[in-house]
Amino acid sequence: MSLIKVKDALEIVLKNSENFGIEEVDFLNASGRVLKESIFADRDFPPFDRVSMDGIAISSESFNNGQRTFKIEGIQAAGSPQLTLQNTSNCLEAMTGAVLPKNTDAVIQYELLTIENGIAKVNLEVVKNFQNIHLKGTDKKQCDLLINENTLISPAEIGIFATVGKTKVKVAKQPKVMVVSTGNELVEVSEIPTDHQIRRSNVFTLVSLLEKLQIKAETLHILDDKKVLLTKIESLLAIYDVLIFSGAVSKGKFDFIPEVLDELGVKKLFHEVKQRPGKPFWFGKKGEKTIFAFPGNPVSTFVNCVKYFYPWHYKSVGLNFENKHNAILSEDFYFKPEMTYFLQVKLIQVEGKLWATPISGKGSGDLANLAEADAFLELPDNRSNFTKGEVFPVIIYRQ
Amino acid sequence: MSLIKVKDALEIVLKNSENFGIEEVDFLNASGRVLKESIFADRDFPPFDRVSMDGIAISSESFNNGQRTFKIEGIQAAGSPQLTLQNTSNCLEAMTGAVLPKNTDAVIQYELLTIENGIAKVNLEVVKNFQNIHLKGTDKKQCDLLINENTLISPAEIGIFATVGKTKVKVAKQPKVMVVSTGNELVEVSEIPTDHQIRRSNVFTLVSLLEKLQIKAETLHILDDKKVLLTKIESLLAIYDVLIFSGAVSKGKFDFIPEVLDELGVKKLFHEVKQRPGKPFWFGKKGEKTIFAFPGNPVSTFVNCVKYFYPWHYKSVGLNFENKHNAILSEDFYFKPEMTYFLQVKLIQVEGKLWATPISGKGSGDLANLAEADAFLELPDNRSNFTKGEVFPVIIYRQ
Repeated sequence: MSLIKVKDALEIVLKNSENFGIEEVDFLNASGRVLKESIFADRDFPPFDRVSMDGIAISSESFNNGQRTFKIEGIQAAGSPQLTLQNTSNCLEAMTGAVLPKNTDAVIQYELLTIENGIAKVNLEVVKNFQNIHLKGTDKKQCDLLINENTLISPAEIGIFATVGKTKVKVAKQPKVMVVSTGNELVEVSEIPTDHQIRRSNVFTLVSLLEKLQIKAETLHILDDKKVLLTKIESLLAIYDVLIFSGAVSKGKFDFIPEVLDELGVKKLFHEVKQRPGKPFWFGKKGEKTIFAFPGNPVSTFVNCVKYFYPWHYKSVGLNFENKHNAILSEDFYFKPEMTYFLQVKLIQVEGKLWATPISGKGSGDLANLAEADAFLELPDNRSNFTKGEVFPVIIYRQ
Repeated sequence: MSLIKVKDALEIVLKNSENFGIEEVDFLNASGRVLKESIFADRDFPPFDRVSMDGIAISSESFNNGQRTFKIEGIQAAGSPQLTLQNTSNCLEAMTGAVLPKNTDAVIQYELLTIENGIAKVNLEVVKNFQNIHLKGTDKKQCDLLINENTLISPAEIGIFATVGKTKVKVAKQPKVMVVSTGNELVEVSEIPTDHQIRRSNVFTLVSLLEKLQIKAETLHILDDKKVLLTKIESLLAIYDVLIFSGAVSKGKFDFIPEVLDELGVKKLFHEVKQRPGKPFWFGKKGEKTIFAFPGNPVSTFVNCVKYFYPWHYKSVGLNFENKHNAILSEDFYFKPEMTYFLQVKLIQVEGKLWATPISGKGSGDLANLAEADAFLELPDNRSNFTKGEVFPVIIYRQ
């Protein structure tokens, strides 16, 4: 029995990422997608010398010549064409967001003024050139790069798309994914299981995990019948980019998935990983189709999805993926088998440090445990004793 | 000019949270919502003594009496009713997920067997009672609490809903939110602005920020005309639970929002917070309606949304909110004014520690900056020098 190491399994999975192309979406629907074009400034930002405080715009020369009272000529409102200060001993009221009026070069905010009978009196000794003015092009120049290609789009980027008039943006297309459950013991969520049955749940966990990546996956249940599996999986392979299975990949008499995939020409790239939970994971390819066959235990399916499918997807859509999260073990822990152990932990951040506290699970079947934890701490396979204070990689699945 | 402190402003905002009631949704659409019922085990988990390895089920008594070869009587498949081992010197093949057959109390995995002519030979010296059996009720007992009310639903919870047959779940209803921009300088995203105009962007940033909370907000633009504002806002107050404004809350001649809200009977709870950016924030209530009037600069709007609206929403839907994130400043920083400073930072995690590196911004108008940062580090208002290595609260807006 030669199991592949987690590191090597992940490497193979990442090598087998796929490019699903590019599509255009409405900018407001782009959050969570990966940008497939660079976004440049369509004009200078600010696009004009912009008043940044409400007050009066003056010529600083007049002020520096000792003048402290300014007759108000008019109002420069935001959204109005630029006015001209006709007489540089006067002033124009000027509003935040407005164009700085011609012949002015300083704005004095209302807080420092007394206005009476159309005359503004300035209670201030020094006026700096261009004070309270956000000068044209100081944030960005026209054609400056604002957002790089391959950025994961968040609300900040949505605002920038709007600013530069990108009503449509190019994003990475998502793979078409089918999530398949097998197992004759499974009944629908709406059914009452008999004594020897349980409800389907993994496929829905997977759909929900994929939804976090903005993938709308479909689901299907197939009975443990080799002929049926052959026919159905063959047709799925023709339609979907990715098949994710949950169950029937171990050594059981009815664990037909590996042999069915083999007969359908799917090339096995590995089967069984040196890890717990999730050991019987089977991974293969047929041309551009990618097949993740996860073991059927709830925690096994879950950890394999976040450990392998997530990075595979990040790489496929062009995100420069590397899990840089790590956490500090908060108590000693012992795990004997020579396997990578994905320890379910609760996270807490104290003084800038992320601590991981083990949740005592009862094995890979205990889904309820996932609700009590936040993350998997990845303990290496070459040792059994893990000491409080040591730092390990962590896969966070809950904020 | 007496500005309210950030801490006091947040306290007022939180005190003015609202309960929007409960609705039932399909369990598969519940991710990101807040659970409004407790979820209990509908049966024991596992619901039966469950085979957890593929192999043979035997009576350990026979093994302990020295027997090492077992005639195979049949197969106990997952999803089949429980079989009975007729002769306790024999065995039944038993598959992962199957009910443990009657008269057996141990499972030996295929890896430790040689099977020939219907006889399984066991290559093993010791068999433990109930080995490779996941005993009924060891994870959870019927009626055990699985998920607490007021939990933020994630994929792990979706799987549990499925497991216990909750096709519909009760979740917190979302507020009806209208996001309003004002400002005559604003044009639509699809338009080409003239020299003194800019495109609407804040409302879309806000919509996208609210989408992260599973709120589908609507947007509207109103010109800086007091009469129009009065009429339109009055009708919005009748329809929406929350109004969020962006702009027109400062000291400008056309900053009508505070006086319009006042005339419409909205009670101001505070105006102007001792913070930068985002100082001119105006907050008020009219009965159960909540009004957030944010300043119009992009970064001001953004920071106020994550600093005030997010916690207000968490509390409203029943999440026990407290921002426990904090990060370590990676370089000395100086900020003179006696105000809380929301410093834009890039985060990096090293050895379990979260470091925050300042991004040099060019003020509250610089939206492009938001795309370069991940978070706001909240620097207190009572000092000017902040030293490398110090820990401060952080609001993370990007994963």
